[in-house]
Amino acid sequence: MIVAMQEHATEEQIDNVIDKMVNSGVNVHRTTGTTQTILAGVGPTANLDIEEFKLLPGVLYVHRISSPYKLAGRGFRPEGTIVTFRNGVQVGGEQVAIMAGPCSIETPEQIHEVARQVKQAGASFLRGGAFKPRSSPYAFQGLGIDGLKLMREAADEQGLLAISEVMEISQIEPMLPYVDCFQVGARNMQNFNLLRELGKVRKPVMLKRGIAATIEELLLASEYILAGGNYDVILCERGIRTYETYTRNTMDVSAIPVIKKLSHLPIIGDPSHGTGRRDMVPPMARASVAAGADGIIVEVHPNPDKAVSDGAQTMFPEAFTELVGQLRLIAAAVGRSL
Amino acid sequence: MIVAMQEHATEEQIDNVIDKMVNSGVNVHRTTGTTQTILAGVGPTANLDIEEFKLLPGVLYVHRISSPYKLAGRGFRPEGTIVTFRNGVQVGGEQVAIMAGPCSIETPEQIHEVARQVKQAGASFLRGGAFKPRSSPYAFQGLGIDGLKLMREAADEQGLLAISEVMEISQIEPMLPYVDCFQVGARNMQNFNLLRELGKVRKPVMLKRGIAATIEELLLASEYILAGGNYDVILCERGIRTYETYTRNTMDVSAIPVIKKLSHLPIIGDPSHGTGRRDMVPPMARASVAAGADGIIVEVHPNPDKAVSDGAQTMFPEAFTELVGQLRLIAAAVGRSL
Amino acid sequence: MIVAMQEHATEEQIDNVIDKMVNSGVNVHRTTGTTQTILAGVGPTANLDIEEFKLLPGVLYVHRISSPYKLAGRGFRPEGTIVTFRNGVQVGGEQVAIMAGPCSIETPEQIHEVARQVKQAGASFLRGGAFKPRSSPYAFQGLGIDGLKLMREAADEQGLLAISEVMEISQIEPMLPYVDCFQVGARNMQNFNLLRELGKVRKPVMLKRGIAATIEELLLASEYILAGGNYDVILCERGIRTYETYTRNTMDVSAIPVIKKLSHLPIIGDPSHGTGRRDMVPPMARASVAAGADGIIVEVHPNPDKAVSDGAQTMFPEAFTELVGQLRLIAAAVGRSL
Amino acid sequence: MIVAMQEHATEEQIDNVIDKMVNSGVNVHRTTGTTQTILAGVGPTANLDIEEFKLLPGVLYVHRISSPYKLAGRGFRPEGTIVTFRNGVQVGGEQVAIMAGPCSIETPEQIHEVARQVKQAGASFLRGGAFKPRSSPYAFQGLGIDGLKLMREAADEQGLLAISEVMEISQIEPMLPYVDCFQVGARNMQNFNLLRELGKVRKPVMLKRGIAATIEELLLASEYILAGGNYDVILCERGIRTYETYTRNTMDVSAIPVIKKLSHLPIIGDPSHGTGRRDMVPPMARASVAAGADGIIVEVHPNPDKAVSDGAQTMFPEAFTELVGQLRLIAAAVGRSL
Repeated sequence: MIVAMQEHATEEQIDNVIDKMVNSGVNVHRTTGTTQTILAGVGPTANLDIEEFKLLPGVLYVHRISSPYKLAGRGFRPEGTIVTFRNGVQVGGEQVAIMAGPCSIETPEQIHEVARQVKQAGASFLRGGAFKPRSSPYAFQGLGIDGLKLMREAADEQGLLAISEVMEISQIEPMLPYVDCFQVGARNMQNFNLLRELGKVRKPVMLKRGIAATIEELLLASEYILAGGNYDVILCERGIRTYETYTRNTMDVSAIPVIKKLSHLPIIGDPSHGTGRRDMVPPMARASVAAGADGIIVEVHPNPDKAVSDGAQTMFPEAFTELVGQLRLIAAAVGRSL
Repeated sequence: MIVAMQEHATEEQIDNVIDKMVNSGVNVHRTTGTTQTILAGVGPTANLDIEEFKLLPGVLYVHRISSPYKLAGRGFRPEGTIVTFRNGVQVGGEQVAIMAGPCSIETPEQIHEVARQVKQAGASFLRGGAFKPRSSPYAFQGLGIDGLKLMREAADEQGLLAISEVMEISQIEPMLPYVDCFQVGARNMQNFNLLRELGKVRKPVMLKRGIAATIEELLLASEYILAGGNYDVILCERGIRTYETYTRNTMDVSAIPVIKKLSHLPIIGDPSHGTGRRDMVPPMARASVAAGADGIIVEVHPNPDKAVSDGAQTMFPEAFTELVGQLRLIAAAVGRSL
Repeated sequence: MIVAMQEHATEEQIDNVIDKMVNSGVNVHRTTGTTQTILAGVGPTANLDIEEFKLLPGVLYVHRISSPYKLAGRGFRPEGTIVTFRNGVQVGGEQVAIMAGPCSIETPEQIHEVARQVKQAGASFLRGGAFKPRSSPYAFQGLGIDGLKLMREAADEQGLLAISEVMEISQIEPMLPYVDCFQVGARNMQNFNLLRELGKVRKPVMLKRGIAATIEELLLASEYILAGGNYDVILCERGIRTYETYTRNTMDVSAIPVIKKLSHLPIIGDPSHGTGRRDMVPPMARASVAAGADGIIVEVHPNPDKAVSDGAQTMFPEAFTELVGQLRLIAAAVGRSL
Repeated sequence: MIVAMQEHATEEQIDNVIDKMVNSGVNVHRTTGTTQTILAGVGPTANLDIEEFKLLPGVLYVHRISSPYKLAGRGFRPEGTIVTFRNGVQVGGEQVAIMAGPCSIETPEQIHEVARQVKQAGASFLRGGAFKPRSSPYAFQGLGIDGLKLMREAADEQGLLAISEVMEISQIEPMLPYVDCFQVGARNMQNFNLLRELGKVRKPVMLKRGIAATIEELLLASEYILAGGNYDVILCERGIRTYETYTRNTMDVSAIPVIKKLSHLPIIGDPSHGTGRRDMVPPMARASVAAGADGIIVEVHPNPDKAVSDGAQTMFPEAFTELVGQLRLIAAAVGRSL
């Protein structure tokens, strides 16, 4: 950590800061300039509350120097993490992964039809919601485990992997037989108890960035899962909240290359939630892959206008097929395949 | 709901929109202008996904007209809600309520000392965290139920009410004997399963605004509790995330009068989390009361520098006492007492 | 415009709103539901201050229905605008335009060298700043007209078009002989006097989105130029301010397809300012073209480490050449060429 | 400045960074920890582009330590600046200043009537717009110098000071005889040419915070005026753009105490623009004074419903009178008078 003193800080103030640093177990190196003194603290600063130092008399600025995350940092695995699923499909490797399916699992017919359609188009994962977090208490809340059984059948029939959202600890155990990958939604990105439990599971977890989370907070949240010994974590950019309201969220495409740089974990893009509008999904899916995403996750429904949830951001199967064709060309342009 | 068609929308496009509205159970009134057609839909539109209408050919804009919340709206209780606690203390009435205490309950000595201090200064609620949601998995996670027992004793000794954060459903039952008011933190504002369970409890709940939640989303979240039959809900503004980084969050003081207008529920201010800096707590506590808040919640510790969490935003007892004196004058200026 | 009355609005309140609408020259159509009355106003509402209606007693919501911009809207030129420069180069057509050059024009050697390099890589525009808006009064302020002369020579030698920023009205006239396209920077997006003057010029103008401007405000600003009779306007997305601080700004890639939908004007991406980091420019340039941008503008310098301004976001010539190669493949993937 | 190297940075990388620092005229102090090396640079770093250092191989973080502003910093005048006007009225002293008047100067009758009303209520400044920056090119653009003459007469008749917005350099000279204080609007906060010219004027300037400006950027902008020798600068918080849309902007009340701490310049609050809604002006004016503002500026009109601009945020004279009464009590609560 670094503490920069104000220009006319007194020796007493400087000593006071040094004392507090030393008491926190930090070694202090002092640099005395003509107008300003700087204190560099080396040691176990990860859990220090640097805010406290900002309030000490004579202090101008305090900065933490080391990353607050350890296991999620690029340095931990410079070569990058590749998450390998039981059928050999990989996320984070040379191939760009396509995950697609309806917002909500609704009926056997619906999920089987969409599974067939997305498989044909080139997807390797079937997505579908069984437990739905809805802003209104009066909206459809999902089919639960019965829905997951339907999705599992449909996925198996097509040789697809299945991914679905887990909303609370009690759902982990019953979901285990039916999903290949747990999804943690944006609203639960900082549900640390849930993350900790998922760290004990031996199945991959896809962790979505919270609607107001910084990249650092996303990496720190992933640390909860990694710290439990589950290294198969996939991150997901799905739009952040800004002042612009034309799109439901503002998809932070730049988070994709930034996370590639800061972390070894794979990162995929979710243009459906990132924009909230069906007509904006193809350009933003293309942008994600062009920016280096390891995959995309997209909402597709045989009949979006009749979907029980998120219809407005759900693609028609034909449009999805066309999109995958474009993504194939873009993947090639950035040295990947699909 | 209102659907405004584009200037040159065809009759076929207009009919298509009308069909979809009628199929959703909505009565349609058509206004044909010289250049533009407007369709007003009246009926059960609360659960409609208006985003879907935005994508129909020929549509320019779609707006929901009615509030998506019902029970939380001012119209439901125009006279305003007063939450009355078992000792007669009220929140939402003429008196401005003061809630204070440490971020974390640490030791019997600490919690008893702070209880005595805040009581003397004029507080009627003792706050203290027993279950802590921490951004880092390596930080202190709270004393749990043992901590709540300590807080209960300290509160009873001073005749204070006790408020503490509940983080998940399994904690509700064990917490019941020890708290007078459940607090739902910003990270859990949209943990709808938790809110639903708190709707079944017969104890007041203080619901904090999420760090990126709109005022409408806060009211909608409160609806989950109200819909369960628990009408004793207190809202809390605690800062939102903006581009400004000098303060930890930007405390949206204007949310206080806005919520007073839109809803009947009491609203209090949390300047400790709203600013993240001890030196900014007094001015923002004063601003909250001046803007019409029904109370404030503030972090106070006998020795903030030694606090295990949030020390930087925690007040010294003397400064807190001085602040309460100022708040008394400001409350009088806005026709309240304290 | 639409005015939705509150559920229990009185007839007197409704009449009062109707009166105010009629007095503003608007025809009113009334829809009376069982619980709610809706008033649709048709007529010249573009200049109405709808905020005033929100404050009338009994009013729940007020929405403007028609776009506040006219000439910039897609409906004005459904086929899209192609800006054609004097040497036949087009922006907004089938070709993706590449604009590149240093942040600041520094020396004859520097500008000639970079002109040669970007031309070779495939650019058709040379960019370079002569008047610099700097956040600090103590920073380099640009070479002025002398710099533009240097840029003109270098551009002509390579057969490139020249684009440079105009900061105030008095600069327009002296700049005219030296630039092929005026650039209006983000800070001046709402300098309406300057925009109005540029509406009278007969040279193309590239208008950058302000750092906190909505898409609607950008289109409204362009209306100032269009209203003067200058239809050769190119828009530019260059990052908006959000809470995320890892990148200097958050490049709103989705603004590109949104503007394509709402407006007929060409839109290009500026990944240099959009990210503020050299290593993030290639992924975001690729994302822009993949999302449908009509071009990109990028900072390139023979020796970025020695650049007098913006060195951190400036590319090395070799990296730029490699990027253009990738963009060529991506342009093909979306049916464009380069 | 501080450069923190990555954990496994090589000696070559470290030397490379040191070289670049030394070449920039900075003295380097090196701290070598067991896992990490930190380089502290002391010297003329104000104009260094620290972004460039972030891109060097092996670098983890770079922080500027010293404030980029000098003259605006609290350290320059620890006792605080009091701006004294020709009639003895002060801003920044013990008294809270009240500035009020219409958004636009419209007619002699209007400006005389409002001058009389605000004077009676307790204002010491008459505000009124003569040059109006409007988002739409089709809206009312102000009366210009003729309007200022009207305002001058009205102000003199009531013994009020006059404040009005200057939009460009060419307006400064003609405005000089008519205003006691120039106002720089939020859109022009970074119009550095204009600020520089105002630095040469010998009249006070009120500088409003830009809609997306950080507190640091506001102080840096004020530096342009101070650097010219004009020390009579008053800052103004008038709302920033956030994701919340119920209010037009989110008034950052906490900026008031923060600026009091960081700078010696007076700071006032503008709740009219801060909220955009007449009914939210009184609570936010009270909050501003409670938080320590040196004054407020409020829009008042004899008949807000007929105002040619900003009617929705303009107060009725009676409500303004009542507000000033409340502010008097709150000023007393924080040790000020009015």
